Amino acid sequence: MFESTFADAGRRDWVDSGGDEGGNGDGSGSDGDDTTTRIATVGCGNYARSVSIPAMARGDYARPTVVVSGDADKRAALADEFGVTALDYDEYEAGAATDEYDAVYVATPNRLHLPHVETAAGHGKHVICEKPLEATVERAERLVGACEDAGVRLMTAYRMQTDPVMRRLRAFVAAGGIGDLQRAVGDFTFPVLAGDAGPEQWRLDGRLAGGGALYDVGVYPLNTARFVAGDDPTAVSATVRSPDDAFDEVDQHVDFRVEFGGGDADGWVGNFSASFSGHPNTSLELLGTEGRIAVRSAFQPGADREVTVETAEGTMEFAGLGADETVEEFDYFAHAVATGGDIEPDGADGLVDMRTLAAVQASARAGERIELER
Amino acid sequence: MFESTFADAGRRDWVDSGGDEGGNGDGSGSDGDDTTTRIATVGCGNYARSVSIPAMARGDYARPTVVVSGDADKRAALADEFGVTALDYDEYEAGAATDEYDAVYVATPNRLHLPHVETAAGHGKHVICEKPLEATVERAERLVGACEDAGVRLMTAYRMQTDPVMRRLRAFVAAGGIGDLQRAVGDFTFPVLAGDAGPEQWRLDGRLAGGGALYDVGVYPLNTARFVAGDDPTAVSATVRSPDDAFDEVDQHVDFRVEFGGGDADGWVGNFSASFSGHPNTSLELLGTEGRIAVRSAFQPGADREVTVETAEGTMEFAGLGADETVEEFDYFAHAVATGGDIEPDGADGLVDMRTLAAVQASARAGERIELER
Repeated sequence: MFESTFADAGRRDWVDSGGDEGGNGDGSGSDGDDTTTRIATVGCGNYARSVSIPAMARGDYARPTVVVSGDADKRAALADEFGVTALDYDEYEAGAATDEYDAVYVATPNRLHLPHVETAAGHGKHVICEKPLEATVERAERLVGACEDAGVRLMTAYRMQTDPVMRRLRAFVAAGGIGDLQRAVGDFTFPVLAGDAGPEQWRLDGRLAGGGALYDVGVYPLNTARFVAGDDPTAVSATVRSPDDAFDEVDQHVDFRVEFGGGDADGWVGNFSASFSGHPNTSLELLGTEGRIAVRSAFQPGADREVTVETAEGTMEFAGLGADETVEEFDYFAHAVATGGDIEPDGADGLVDMRTLAAVQASARAGERIELER
Repeated sequence: MFESTFADAGRRDWVDSGGDEGGNGDGSGSDGDDTTTRIATVGCGNYARSVSIPAMARGDYARPTVVVSGDADKRAALADEFGVTALDYDEYEAGAATDEYDAVYVATPNRLHLPHVETAAGHGKHVICEKPLEATVERAERLVGACEDAGVRLMTAYRMQTDPVMRRLRAFVAAGGIGDLQRAVGDFTFPVLAGDAGPEQWRLDGRLAGGGALYDVGVYPLNTARFVAGDDPTAVSATVRSPDDAFDEVDQHVDFRVEFGGGDADGWVGNFSASFSGHPNTSLELLGTEGRIAVRSAFQPGADREVTVETAEGTMEFAGLGADETVEEFDYFAHAVATGGDIEPDGADGLVDMRTLAAVQASARAGERIELER
């Protein structure tokens, strides 16, 4: 079963036919093609500039056509590199160049997602919004409502849901490849101060970010385990530690246990963790009644996922089956918008995590297990 | 640093000199040798018969000389195989053959540890007692007190503390090999019904065992992480699930988070789990500020520990450096008893785990984080 599940790992299972449905097969873009979507990027931080916009440019269905930034130098550099129209925030809000994009990618600090999504929805543009959806549950609910009210599509930018390896692992688990899931273990340790950005960055600003390691990277093991298992949380329990001064407003280390499916035979538990300092680490492990799956380099952008699958049949290790999940992410969104296809990591999916993250914070404060409303 | 720490992995660091101090160098045993200890095994279940007694027989300092069992067939078979004197429980309690053993290995169901240790102490015999020490904290405290009052040595049988790989990892961590410890993750999944023993076994009897997967195998990641890090718990939070009928008296699955050293920079968190059903799994991972250690086959008896050490210097994987930790365990105990050497996994060490396990059970019942008294 393992081999058959992974034999077609290169195929885009979200495209109905295996062949060319259109798109920019040559990567060059073509106006008016009915399977491409032109995307305006709002917020041009390092991740958007170095990962997201280049991924759109490499895609078959996504095309970067507009950028919105408050920084004139960034606007000029991006216009030069990608041939995009560059706007400042006033121009974006006023509706400049709305005929040059079909959808908006919101990549600003978390607490600014809502106003930029509201602007996009007001312009009638579809939205792909970075995770977590906002800095609070209430604001995230308003964000989702704004898209619903305007009749525009909304995707929460969970790139692991379009990672080919994770999609195959989901199929393998759903087909009973490791029996019934009993437990997941996942960690994302991201030394946020190790790069160019110092302690003044928005990720350490409690109000702008909404949370620290939990919000920025803890959502990866949580959402990816939910995606691979196809379940939603029922209760959480958490511990937070922030010993270093740089993290006086946000969690530096979080360890959170998430219960799924209650105490019956269908239930399972996720032991997740995230840190904003320490040796870099991303891992996801799934333990079942009949086997075990372990993924190293599980969440790094564009990394080769190292996968071990252990069952009664034996142990298989593989690597090199993946593809750049961020290219996949924007192509998945662009293709769905252009063709009316399903968007699985939708606003409702993003809201489940927002409510879970809020419960994790509340649990850590109270020292109590907190049940989630279903 | 990594290479130098592991260069001498074969050396018994608990023997002062590298050379022969006596002992049964030829494994044949020799009466009156002042570095050997003759051991009576009380309780001859499968583990004692197939692992512990053969390990004593293979050791340099331990010698199996007496067995105590309520089963005449087991007594005859063990007497035949190991040349030991075989007693029933009445004979053991009455003091039969006390001139044939110096120490007692107690391997009965957990709730029977106390009376058998009291008997051993009454005979003036040293004790190595299986983990966990007893079925309740109060009984474990009486057990430790009985040995103290009688002036006999007590070792809690934590075989991972004498595992050569774990001892080297402890030295590597203590020397700063992965910087400051931030997090440990460990699991022991043991399908207790997969072997010959059916649902009538004592491990599933709540009163006899005191707990299920938590007591029988969950203590491994807990105690081993404590040993490698050199820290004691300060608080716990836990979830228990027992969906299958066979586990109506004990925990089938437990997930427990253990805080060490409080919320300051010295603090760290252990995310531990254990199951009495599912695909077999034993693992321990240590995440630090400067590196990561992962051990597969971490807790199986006599298994080759597969170790990955990842630091800024690179990633090293090794196997084959270990030795049978159960031979080491009984030799360590026997050597310490014979020479007056330190016993690190002593009664106090065992009591820390008993109090932690009890707090884990209470936390799961209450749905609350529980702080431990220091």
